[in-house]
Amino acid sequence: MQQFVGVLGGMGPLATVDFLKKLVVNMPTAVDQEHVPVLLYGDCTVPERNAAIAGAGPSPLPKLLAGIAFLAQAGVRAICIPCNTAHYWHEEMAAASPVPVFHIVRASAAEVRQKNPSVRSVGVLSTLGTQQSGIYRAALTEMGLEVVESTEEEFEELVLPGIALVKSNQLAAAEILFAEAAACLCERGAETIILGCTEIPLGMQHQLHARPAMFVDSTDALARAVIDFWRK
Amino acid sequence: MQQFVGVLGGMGPLATVDFLKKLVVNMPTAVDQEHVPVLLYGDCTVPERNAAIAGAGPSPLPKLLAGIAFLAQAGVRAICIPCNTAHYWHEEMAAASPVPVFHIVRASAAEVRQKNPSVRSVGVLSTLGTQQSGIYRAALTEMGLEVVESTEEEFEELVLPGIALVKSNQLAAAEILFAEAAACLCERGAETIILGCTEIPLGMQHQLHARPAMFVDSTDALARAVIDFWRK
Repeated sequence: MQQFVGVLGGMGPLATVDFLKKLVVNMPTAVDQEHVPVLLYGDCTVPERNAAIAGAGPSPLPKLLAGIAFLAQAGVRAICIPCNTAHYWHEEMAAASPVPVFHIVRASAAEVRQKNPSVRSVGVLSTLGTQQSGIYRAALTEMGLEVVESTEEEFEELVLPGIALVKSNQLAAAEILFAEAAACLCERGAETIILGCTEIPLGMQHQLHARPAMFVDSTDALARAVIDFWRK
Repeated sequence: MQQFVGVLGGMGPLATVDFLKKLVVNMPTAVDQEHVPVLLYGDCTVPERNAAIAGAGPSPLPKLLAGIAFLAQAGVRAICIPCNTAHYWHEEMAAASPVPVFHIVRASAAEVRQKNPSVRSVGVLSTLGTQQSGIYRAALTEMGLEVVESTEEEFEELVLPGIALVKSNQLAAAEILFAEAAACLCERGAETIILGCTEIPLGMQHQLHARPAMFVDSTDALARAVIDFWRK
């Protein structure tokens, strides 16, 4: 299975579908056999990541490591995880894997510079767990960038209800909330916004289409990183 | 992995994504953990099925059986294959599997009756290989239904170019061709049309939305069959 890329997915299920789609549509071919062969371990029963980071629920780590072990045992060439919040445990997963484990936060941060080399202030829309874990703040600060995050009120009224709407496949309703959450970040100086939760691009399809230069879609950034790796 | 459903996919890659999406959106839940855990063996390098059926290319069967063996060895509860043409080899795959292997043609034929119990004449849009294999003709004739298929000219000018457009992600362009191919079947008496190739629903999204009663989407029928099985 050396030609397969392993995907540890299911967090959430629709975000995994969106990732697999971006892995297909970003590949410049119309021939089935030239796409990336994928082994997806789509364990949607992994415990909720945000509750665990907040200390209010069981750790997802045992199930994440079970997925890594399965994919590694199968012999995949590399592993990717289309869930930002799960990257709180990236170090443990990478340590347990004999093959490279992509990092969605680093892929997204790199795309910020590629899209707009002169950017200074970057907004991040994410889950509360991702914000609390500080994984985007650390990566962007290290690059000399200012980070603009959602306030507690914006999380409660806009971002978290938007993510819940995506999880119930109400994408148009989610878009209204995410648009407002993005506008709040821009008002506080964000020049570019990372959609740092893989559910969020699903609920921002119109805005992504209308203003592609404004956003960095973490799902898309991870898919492009996998394609670059696979073509080398 | 007893709670996982195995998916033998990648034929083509975008059709597999569409199947996984339908497995999510047809499940009546907004909670990640209540979806179907999926193990996808997405081997897009399986040799082209139509050429093999026409005797003009290598058999995909060895790679199909490798996928079945991998999924069975992993311990999945059942296996599904979101590619109609690959069902030409269903008997061999089912014989090699210790767990049930869903049949997309039977799931689609059953949905014809569910949607419209009084239907007498059913059109089938499919690949040439699926038509040549006669898998839909056999299943529908056995149910006492008349079958309307595309002519050689309709295949060459409409259906096959439409499928090629889907494989290059030109969905709107595909829709024009598929609409005409469907109209040709209706002119010859089809009351309902089975989209008997998993690429076709991707290129008929507007028509599926506008006239849901007219079509049976084989991808959707397979996803619903898997969900029914999994919930029992």
